[in-house]
Amino acid sequence: MYTRMSSRTWRAGLAGCLAWALALAGRRAAADEGMWPFNAPPVDRIARDHGVRITAGWLDHLQRSSVRFNTGGSGAFVSATGLVLTNHHVGADAIHKLGDAEHDYLRDGFAAPTAAAELQCHDLELNVLVSIEDVTARVRRAVPEEATPDEAFEARRAVLAEIERESLAATGLRSDVVTLYQGGAYHLHRSKRYTDVRLVFAPEQQIAFYGGDPDNFEFPRYDLDVCFFRAYEDGRPARVDRHLVWADVGVREGDTVFVSGHPGHTDRGATIAELVSLRDRRLPLDLRLLTRREAVIRAYALRGPEEKRQATQDLRGVENGRKARGGVLAGLLDPRIMETRRRAEAELRQGFGEPSEPAAPFARIERAQAALDATLERERLLEGEAAFDSEYFRNARTILRAVTERAKPSGQRLREYRDSNRGPLELRLLSEKRIHDAFEIVKLTDSLTLLATSLGGDDPLVTAVLAGRSPADRAATLVAGTELGRRAGMPTRPDRRRELYDGGEEAVNASSDPMLGLARLVDAEARRLRALAESADEEQKQAHAEIVRARHAREGAAMYPDATFTLRLAVGSVRGVRAEGRECGAITTFGGLFARAVEKQNVPPFDLPPRWRAAGEALRGDAEFMATPLNFASTADIIGGNSGSPVVNAAGQLVGVIFDGNIHSLVLDVAYDDVLARAVAVDARGIRAALSRVYGARWLLDELAAAGERSGALDSER
Amino acid sequence: MYTRMSSRTWRAGLAGCLAWALALAGRRAAADEGMWPFNAPPVDRIARDHGVRITAGWLDHLQRSSVRFNTGGSGAFVSATGLVLTNHHVGADAIHKLGDAEHDYLRDGFAAPTAAAELQCHDLELNVLVSIEDVTARVRRAVPEEATPDEAFEARRAVLAEIERESLAATGLRSDVVTLYQGGAYHLHRSKRYTDVRLVFAPEQQIAFYGGDPDNFEFPRYDLDVCFFRAYEDGRPARVDRHLVWADVGVREGDTVFVSGHPGHTDRGATIAELVSLRDRRLPLDLRLLTRREAVIRAYALRGPEEKRQATQDLRGVENGRKARGGVLAGLLDPRIMETRRRAEAELRQGFGEPSEPAAPFARIERAQAALDATLERERLLEGEAAFDSEYFRNARTILRAVTERAKPSGQRLREYRDSNRGPLELRLLSEKRIHDAFEIVKLTDSLTLLATSLGGDDPLVTAVLAGRSPADRAATLVAGTELGRRAGMPTRPDRRRELYDGGEEAVNASSDPMLGLARLVDAEARRLRALAESADEEQKQAHAEIVRARHAREGAAMYPDATFTLRLAVGSVRGVRAEGRECGAITTFGGLFARAVEKQNVPPFDLPPRWRAAGEALRGDAEFMATPLNFASTADIIGGNSGSPVVNAAGQLVGVIFDGNIHSLVLDVAYDDVLARAVAVDARGIRAALSRVYGARWLLDELAAAGERSGALDSER
Repeated sequence: MYTRMSSRTWRAGLAGCLAWALALAGRRAAADEGMWPFNAPPVDRIARDHGVRITAGWLDHLQRSSVRFNTGGSGAFVSATGLVLTNHHVGADAIHKLGDAEHDYLRDGFAAPTAAAELQCHDLELNVLVSIEDVTARVRRAVPEEATPDEAFEARRAVLAEIERESLAATGLRSDVVTLYQGGAYHLHRSKRYTDVRLVFAPEQQIAFYGGDPDNFEFPRYDLDVCFFRAYEDGRPARVDRHLVWADVGVREGDTVFVSGHPGHTDRGATIAELVSLRDRRLPLDLRLLTRREAVIRAYALRGPEEKRQATQDLRGVENGRKARGGVLAGLLDPRIMETRRRAEAELRQGFGEPSEPAAPFARIERAQAALDATLERERLLEGEAAFDSEYFRNARTILRAVTERAKPSGQRLREYRDSNRGPLELRLLSEKRIHDAFEIVKLTDSLTLLATSLGGDDPLVTAVLAGRSPADRAATLVAGTELGRRAGMPTRPDRRRELYDGGEEAVNASSDPMLGLARLVDAEARRLRALAESADEEQKQAHAEIVRARHAREGAAMYPDATFTLRLAVGSVRGVRAEGRECGAITTFGGLFARAVEKQNVPPFDLPPRWRAAGEALRGDAEFMATPLNFASTADIIGGNSGSPVVNAAGQLVGVIFDGNIHSLVLDVAYDDVLARAVAVDARGIRAALSRVYGARWLLDELAAAGERSGALDSER
Repeated sequence: MYTRMSSRTWRAGLAGCLAWALALAGRRAAADEGMWPFNAPPVDRIARDHGVRITAGWLDHLQRSSVRFNTGGSGAFVSATGLVLTNHHVGADAIHKLGDAEHDYLRDGFAAPTAAAELQCHDLELNVLVSIEDVTARVRRAVPEEATPDEAFEARRAVLAEIERESLAATGLRSDVVTLYQGGAYHLHRSKRYTDVRLVFAPEQQIAFYGGDPDNFEFPRYDLDVCFFRAYEDGRPARVDRHLVWADVGVREGDTVFVSGHPGHTDRGATIAELVSLRDRRLPLDLRLLTRREAVIRAYALRGPEEKRQATQDLRGVENGRKARGGVLAGLLDPRIMETRRRAEAELRQGFGEPSEPAAPFARIERAQAALDATLERERLLEGEAAFDSEYFRNARTILRAVTERAKPSGQRLREYRDSNRGPLELRLLSEKRIHDAFEIVKLTDSLTLLATSLGGDDPLVTAVLAGRSPADRAATLVAGTELGRRAGMPTRPDRRRELYDGGEEAVNASSDPMLGLARLVDAEARRLRALAESADEEQKQAHAEIVRARHAREGAAMYPDATFTLRLAVGSVRGVRAEGRECGAITTFGGLFARAVEKQNVPPFDLPPRWRAAGEALRGDAEFMATPLNFASTADIIGGNSGSPVVNAAGQLVGVIFDGNIHSLVLDVAYDDVLARAVAVDARGIRAALSRVYGARWLLDELAAAGERSGALDSER
């Protein structure tokens, strides 16, 4: 699954640029490399390589039809009344939160043939990028030349907050300043927010994620990984001025396709010091935490059907994270890849004086990396919350920090508490989703145990946190005593989130909520570790900016920045790949799906949901249906966060929805490849055929057809 | 599951005694504490507490009916023609190895109504303890008073090997000198070996391990965790002179029961330094390795039905290990338990002079522990083979070391290569079980990745091991190239184990087998780490012996040694327990089993095998069957390795088979408890009822009935 990896576990602190990535990879740019900002697309190169010249109007239409999900994925408007198409796994978090002991929409699917039947989601936010403004000059001016890293950090934090505050006040739009090229540029992104989002249609998770963990990040694939939401405004379906229409003709092998979505994070600009840390420290730690969590969550899920329902989303997440990180690590452990990058960096370094010169940017990055690594595990535990895996704890910390930070000027606050982030923060904090205490206790027990074993059972912080109890006793006491969430099955238990959040420091200080007490106990140390990390990050940022500017000046090549979970355009060709020793075509079909179920004896995770088993029987003789494309592969440059990205043809018409990359695509984190790496999409034809022949969702097909009549997409020039 | 934890991951180096454990726990001995050697049972105490005076004849009969499994469990003869009853999970390893792509005996069960149909197992060895001889004086004499730890280690190793060699030569019996009370005593155990063992009957794993991981280490329980093997001699069923007969009357609440089995390892004599290491280092490392392995193996198992079959045993093992170690860790993380032991140790230390005195035994143990901890992870990786998780690698190392060690006098060899261990070693090395290459590659890839991330990707040993390849490439190359095992599905590929093993150093040196090359590459460093660990162990052993001798002299109390996977007797009462807030009785029934399946909606792991679903329907109205006892709980003092132990009544008749302890029993590793901890057994009545009513195994019931007529058990006196 190509959702964005959590920023809590991935340091967004590594910069990059095309020219550099090429130099590091030590080879010519592959034609389709690049995740391009919409205000700087490589128009000429695309025209040269693909014979398609995209226009400003084409780009604008695609940009304003594209949607970002706050759960870490992408999507697109597909009707004038706010219908949004995305991946099932991007919507799964929201779908899961709508369920309860009686309703398992993930397992059973969901369909709302009328607006009244659509289900309002908890804390789901959609963003549509309205404009991009380059504010680099203003940011540069605000930071004095002679500033130390800490001073630069403070000055930059202040000016970014000010720009965002002004923009929000002037336009009412969500306003985020995005750091590109690691300080090479700063862009102000203004986005329209939709916070009333409703579920329209979802298939069963078992067909959306057919093949489960074994087939995840593989190709060929057979997944109907889609679902539909609808954005609302003022209680009515939103009237959106742009949306994508379904292509009349589907893709064929060799076709040019474009992907518009939000790749989350890449490390293509990382230096060897950063890559070694990723290989030897960060990814191993991630994998350690993920496999541990996987064991704990799975053990809970096995307790019974209801526990399985509660845990299913968390489980998918850790499985996916394990496989994704494992793939990146595998790339970094390939000595040939590292050797190539090492040689390329050695060449690059020559432009910056002796490598031992302390001020040289590579040496500064290495020093800062050592500082980051020294506190990595402790920071992840205490600030990253790996030691306090609990919804209640997250609420407690958010409330505690919100009231403290609110007392400061916006420009001096921790980033997530800035005025411009207030809306999204409150959406998350005050979510109406239900919390399951038994599951909370299991997760908190294990994460407190992790804390104790990581720091040692006699560490003073550990003994203070455990307060003389075993991890299990302490977790049970904390969960039983807190009032910072909405408890599943206990409607009469008070929920004091709003009261404390609105009450400010006085109310919070007076509260004896035990989870708030725990958040308070560890807050100073957690903040100290965060400050250390932010300072080292800033040092790296400045060094990276220096490298990037020098290369910019010297080479002047067209450059794209590392992914930052902002809207990007990628281009590629529909193309198959060699897998497990044999060539396989770019396009799979429904017939292939049913054949795979037979081959795997219908054993989970290769079992078909009842509706699909029945359809397989009924349509067995329907050669046209069986030959209908279900998924296809292309060479587009994507990464986690691109899940749900619309795939369009040269005419800007929808031909598919990205949902995954193959296992070789995971190394795209570090360097682009079009030999083995592939982006994988659900084919638009497969979506329509499934809606029609399996789900009988005529009402939804009618809306899509009507959308096609009312909005002709702008053509690019060929 | 109460199989023995692997000695590869548990250091057998912590001593103990009853009196000391009591002192450390800071409370009076609970009546049923103790895992007693058969040559030193607490006859008077049992008579006082239970009103049963056991006799020498009664003990001898039980001892010679008891069986040890080399897979880490216990069992008992139940007929004169070598029929052995044990747990299904003790036999599962052997049952699994009998399967192939067409036969899944774990899933489907197995029944051999005739001798001809019984299946001969691969590398399964049963031992029956014939005699115990105290050789403490001879061992003491062999070690000079003024010896350094390393000299003492060498001297002791030599004399132990000599005693074993002499005994084997004189009697032909397996001869092992067992270290008890951590050097307080040395006993020579002579055992009869059975290496031709055949499978007679096994139910489906899904009823043997009903409730799976969630119910493992829990009570109430509903598991038919039994299977039957038969020992053969000279190609015919073995004529055994002692066996247990089925009790005429089953157990009731409050009854006295005895357990005869092989508890694997306890830490009741551990000092605080050792417990802290266990809590902060050893158990966390174990859990880290286990959860990682669990994720890798489960991902492989999900690939398809055949992969699931291949992986199922490994998966059960890691799940069980995770839950077992998690339980011990939970106990150690309870500050109240540690505080009690800390106070008790402080009192004890006063008898040994100032705690800072370097020669004081507690300080010596602490120093040695620090030395052990310093190399713990590296030793586990290289000597413990966590970095080379491959059957082929294990064979390669065994061959490499066997030919090297064979050139030395037996007393100077690594323990497992002594002459007295030759039989068991060859049984394992030359096993006919099939190895699955795809599974090997997955496990080896992950363990090589672990090596690289643990030592760092640029560590010289890592780059030498990987030889310029990624872990996945390297693993694939090693597995494809080696000829040190019998390959599943490739009967024509050569298998050079025997050839190299017999060929000695010359043949091995000439071999270019890549796996042998890997074993050779890491051997010096692995041996160095092992020698360091053995030296520190020896230092601890001497210090423990000093503590134990002093307490022996001072208190003279009846003592039992920490568990050592040797035959022990435990006594207890059939008793229920408070679980999840309510009292539950000591005995569960078939009715309870079917009710649980309904409560859990028959969702795995709470699904019933088809045969049991049918039986549930057919016997729904049969109140007598539904009321038949299936499992029962008692206060007997057991630990991992006791799985499959016969439970007998005062008359020495079989009333059940131990298969598990509840979650609170895991802390028995550290201290006995009869408030919350319970041993859990399959009730003999449930076994017979299932054989009769569900499996229609009249032939097996007839053999058991005949066994009852031919061998009257010796009565104890009441």
